[in-house]
Amino acid sequence: MKRTKIKALLASQETGQQVCVKGWVRSFRNNQFIAINDGSTVKTIQAVAALDKFDDATRKRLTVGAAVGIVGELVESQGKGQSVEIVANEITIYGDADPEKYPLQPKKHSMEFLREISHLRFRTNTFGAIFRIRHAAAFAIHQFFNDKGFVYLHSPIITGSDAEGAGEMFRVTTFEPNEAPLTEDGKIDYKKDFFGKETNLTVSGQLEAELGALAFSDVYTFGPTFRAENSNTSRHLAEFWMIEPEIAFAGLQENMDLAEEMLKYIVKYALEHCADDIEFLEKRLLDEEKSKPMAERSPMPLKEKLEFCLDNDFVRLTYTEAIEILRNSKPNKKKKFKFPIDEWGADLQSEHERYLVEKHFKKPVILTDYPASIKAFYMRLNEDEKTVAAMDILFPGIGEIVGGSVREERYEVLKGKMEAQDISPEEMSWYLDTRRFGTCPHAGYGLGFARMILFLTGMGNIRDVIPFPRTPGNAGF
Amino acid sequence: MKRTKIKALLASQETGQQVCVKGWVRSFRNNQFIAINDGSTVKTIQAVAALDKFDDATRKRLTVGAAVGIVGELVESQGKGQSVEIVANEITIYGDADPEKYPLQPKKHSMEFLREISHLRFRTNTFGAIFRIRHAAAFAIHQFFNDKGFVYLHSPIITGSDAEGAGEMFRVTTFEPNEAPLTEDGKIDYKKDFFGKETNLTVSGQLEAELGALAFSDVYTFGPTFRAENSNTSRHLAEFWMIEPEIAFAGLQENMDLAEEMLKYIVKYALEHCADDIEFLEKRLLDEEKSKPMAERSPMPLKEKLEFCLDNDFVRLTYTEAIEILRNSKPNKKKKFKFPIDEWGADLQSEHERYLVEKHFKKPVILTDYPASIKAFYMRLNEDEKTVAAMDILFPGIGEIVGGSVREERYEVLKGKMEAQDISPEEMSWYLDTRRFGTCPHAGYGLGFARMILFLTGMGNIRDVIPFPRTPGNAGF
Repeated sequence: MKRTKIKALLASQETGQQVCVKGWVRSFRNNQFIAINDGSTVKTIQAVAALDKFDDATRKRLTVGAAVGIVGELVESQGKGQSVEIVANEITIYGDADPEKYPLQPKKHSMEFLREISHLRFRTNTFGAIFRIRHAAAFAIHQFFNDKGFVYLHSPIITGSDAEGAGEMFRVTTFEPNEAPLTEDGKIDYKKDFFGKETNLTVSGQLEAELGALAFSDVYTFGPTFRAENSNTSRHLAEFWMIEPEIAFAGLQENMDLAEEMLKYIVKYALEHCADDIEFLEKRLLDEEKSKPMAERSPMPLKEKLEFCLDNDFVRLTYTEAIEILRNSKPNKKKKFKFPIDEWGADLQSEHERYLVEKHFKKPVILTDYPASIKAFYMRLNEDEKTVAAMDILFPGIGEIVGGSVREERYEVLKGKMEAQDISPEEMSWYLDTRRFGTCPHAGYGLGFARMILFLTGMGNIRDVIPFPRTPGNAGF
Repeated sequence: MKRTKIKALLASQETGQQVCVKGWVRSFRNNQFIAINDGSTVKTIQAVAALDKFDDATRKRLTVGAAVGIVGELVESQGKGQSVEIVANEITIYGDADPEKYPLQPKKHSMEFLREISHLRFRTNTFGAIFRIRHAAAFAIHQFFNDKGFVYLHSPIITGSDAEGAGEMFRVTTFEPNEAPLTEDGKIDYKKDFFGKETNLTVSGQLEAELGALAFSDVYTFGPTFRAENSNTSRHLAEFWMIEPEIAFAGLQENMDLAEEMLKYIVKYALEHCADDIEFLEKRLLDEEKSKPMAERSPMPLKEKLEFCLDNDFVRLTYTEAIEILRNSKPNKKKKFKFPIDEWGADLQSEHERYLVEKHFKKPVILTDYPASIKAFYMRLNEDEKTVAAMDILFPGIGEIVGGSVREERYEVLKGKMEAQDISPEEMSWYLDTRRFGTCPHAGYGLGFARMILFLTGMGNIRDVIPFPRTPGNAGF
């Protein structure tokens, strides 16, 4: 008999029909009520195994985590909390789960423990919800850009260019460790490595996306990026997925509009398609925060926070305006900031971003026009020759979720900035070529996908929103 | 004035309106007809720059490759080959392209030359078409699986597990070359490397997808995978994207049905959404093949080939049946195969696959139930204990496009096969855990995305269907 997914069954509610469900036992109560989950929804369906219909041998195997198939009649439920249930006629046990050994028992497990069993944590309600939302957000992103005529571009993962300047990189090689051949003058002979040159894992697909934008007008990437930084924080991963749109014939305004529209689209899509999962995570969060002091709790329940993000325009202001606000802020005057804001030009720290977003504006904020000295070489110099047409989007509870800019499209200005930052124009001649031939104003940004999922799920640690997190010392599974 | 994309403009054909297009000059004829392309379509729109309206200085800058903006009235076209054109009122030149230096002149360039300028080849008709089709195929895949309730899973790129056995791997490290620290007994001290262990780039996300399927029922991956193999062929890349669905409570039949349905969905989507690009590539191919001997030409024009794939059921047969056909085939009897087929158990080579698909059946073929000895440890042993429930899909002109199997879900059988192949059950305990706790029949497959694009575009070299190909000796851009 053909299997029906539990999500579809709970949605249809056509009682009286014979149905077949397959999934994993979440609980078995009173020796007859089996709660089954198949991953299609956070909800379980209850199957009733009448005492006179199944033998003890079968009953004993209905333990938490066992894989089962149930055939039976869908009926109106007698119990609370569910509208329909199945009166079981047949039970097939595909795989047992020894209750003495199965690590996921129906009790509260710590997030740290679940991270150690990342291969099984998908089977919990929390991680089921998180990764269904992650799926929905990924699909929303593809749909958003496809609808707008963007071309999805796969930028390279292994890169021979190390000039992107976005952080420490991982080496990629086929040399045996400590057995790399040397040139006559005693240097590593990279000509003999697989690619005939030194190669690393990419930190960003932006430069390649620019090449695409100058042919297709609008492109985006969505792929893994890497940072070999020894940061053990709840916001950093060594391997994470980024979305990097790049738009030709566009400036700062179009870039900000696109990013805000995209973020709202993703949030709206999640609210519409993951209502059950968001509701579950909202309850989980409220429950978890009960033990926290008031000041540390989320200012709004999850769903309200997401709706608030939809209903309000993001605040847009320049770095210069932000510095004024911060300089005159209470925490600055009372010396509560770890990094006091004294003068224009200071790099903003997480504490400043959080103050602006969470205390001052209480809204997502787009900060623009940062000092050139604290931003990357490819950002377009403004007419003041002090600032660049950059934009960072700051989200409550998350900090920077999007970072972007108008790109310096003027050949001479770009070349000058590269030289000033010791980036070889020869090695990057392919990048400069776009400015030599048919250059045009263009802009783009990067969205950290895991940070987006943190926002959508209300989770606190980035290791819990990617299936198999890679961090210093961790590359399990 | 707001810019309209050329694709939309050619579709609307509402003459009489003022429009603004922005893009790159493809040709400038008779000192007044500018053909502009903006990457939204393979087609150009013609703008007429009346001789009395624009000065010579402007005219001189309208060279191939220059980035321009045109504002003017959309009118019915007088010329052939286009229905509408623009009578230009304003011309803005954003970026020049010196005709003495710009490498893309309006003449035939070799594919090899264009590969050397991968940063500019997007701007040609051929590569514009290829990468719009690549985009459409990627979107079709996400839509197909999303509609079916699959969860998109990001399997890890950096992996600490080297037991997948799918080929040579790239090392990932932060050790300085030839400066890796040693343990007391003189071995490389991987504990001091970034992840505290030896790490490589993934060859497949399958094992992790299985972990997902045993929680969500149906999952798929779509991400980059790597092979450090020194193959300089037109079918192999060192870095390529794969799609790997994995389905729980399913066997070989469901796996084959899903793969065939998916492949047809992608082809249908491309035919519906990329008609102009396919038409262009079809003409290109016919043109290219004119100089080839008959026997080497494609048996069908591109569009017909794609439609043929839609209209016909894939042939399904077992390895054992295929061996019989091959053994009795003309080329085998006449000793034309480089690897003659003598007995059951031989691994099939490309020449055999091509014979079956292109000569014998003249259709896509699904081969099943291969000898266990030539397939991976995780494939499910059939009752004959000689063969495994594997399935490979072979496409005309491409060879293997999909490889998959039912997975061995029985703990003891799987453990035995791992031990027989020297794969450590301890190191892979996370994988075995899925068989210890709530195991169930499940199956899956991998689709090589670039090979799919070869099929859809009719291109002959896999380096031409990925933006920046990585092959031995090549990691440019």
